[in-house]
Amino acid sequence: MASTVLYMSMSLDGFVTGPDDGPGEGLGRHGHRLHDWLAEGALSPKSYRPQERISAQVFNEMMGTGAVITGRRTFEHAGQWGGDHHDGVPIFVLTHNPPPDEPLGSARYVTDAADAVRQAKQAARDRDVMVHGASTAQSLLRERLLDAMEIHVVPVLLGQGRRLFDNLPPEHIELALTRCLEAPGVTHLHYDVR
Amino acid sequence: MASTVLYMSMSLDGFVTGPDDGPGEGLGRHGHRLHDWLAEGALSPKSYRPQERISAQVFNEMMGTGAVITGRRTFEHAGQWGGDHHDGVPIFVLTHNPPPDEPLGSARYVTDAADAVRQAKQAARDRDVMVHGASTAQSLLRERLLDAMEIHVVPVLLGQGRRLFDNLPPEHIELALTRCLEAPGVTHLHYDVR
Repeated sequence: MASTVLYMSMSLDGFVTGPDDGPGEGLGRHGHRLHDWLAEGALSPKSYRPQERISAQVFNEMMGTGAVITGRRTFEHAGQWGGDHHDGVPIFVLTHNPPPDEPLGSARYVTDAADAVRQAKQAARDRDVMVHGASTAQSLLRERLLDAMEIHVVPVLLGQGRRLFDNLPPEHIELALTRCLEAPGVTHLHYDVR
Repeated sequence: MASTVLYMSMSLDGFVTGPDDGPGEGLGRHGHRLHDWLAEGALSPKSYRPQERISAQVFNEMMGTGAVITGRRTFEHAGQWGGDHHDGVPIFVLTHNPPPDEPLGSARYVTDAADAVRQAKQAARDRDVMVHGASTAQSLLRERLLDAMEIHVVPVLLGQGRRLFDNLPPEHIELALTRCLEAPGVTHLHYDVR
């Protein structure tokens, strides 16, 4: 059975973007710092395929997912990933108000989180479902639809920006750390949501 | 030379208390969840001396510090620790407006962060200085007076409460992970502040 797994790079102070994120600057002002680890060991600083062994393993797990669930903000700020996040797997874009134009490539708009998870798990078959974006993470957590999280903790305090964990109710959500991998410039923490 | 080291238990979503923290409930509503790891392996659930090997090591390092810097809120919510946080080492309590009454035991009020750090390092001699409390951490970070952090990351999302990292400027503060220890119910991350 497929699991929904949140993949996000987060500063130690909990931010997933710098201030003023927007189209063309999805990570906000100076927020690209959060993706430095993706270029570790690569020839180009713009590489998004880490060459370093441990981070490459985690990255490849993400790229092995069979569907993507994301939010409209993340989706649009990323230029809709040109319609293909990886390997042409279906992309489910959560939005309250789908725009009139169809999204690019393998993407489709979905208005209900439970519906998105059901469709994504079906599409992914025996593979996991990648979840991406702060508000999508919050929606799935609130509705208890998130199974696990792979948080790439970056050793920096951004100070300001968009927080990954925000707008959650005061009821505790218990986690269990199932893996902790130290890699150059990043610590990959894998939690199961209980 | 002594280092200033922040010791704090923090939920994965960045909180160091639940909502409505106050005198007699320093950790806020249900915030005691953050201290569960302190009782790991102990006979009493109210133990604040972890028996589990790894957490005991980290705890003992904290108890080996030669001075404490804290904020007035933390200090008062903790009942002034009866005037003795550990081993009678001096406690420097940062506050803008010192109250007329002298604090208990080895504590004293200090109005300036740099002054507190200078006095505390002098008192600690070759030992480190324990820093405790969210607003004190933020003051020292803003003034670049913090040398290191030992963050006890607790596998729970509290959802609401007081954040450890808040009210910081948008200038990045770079960190370096120098140790990562997995223990039952907690992950101890040690960062040097660059």
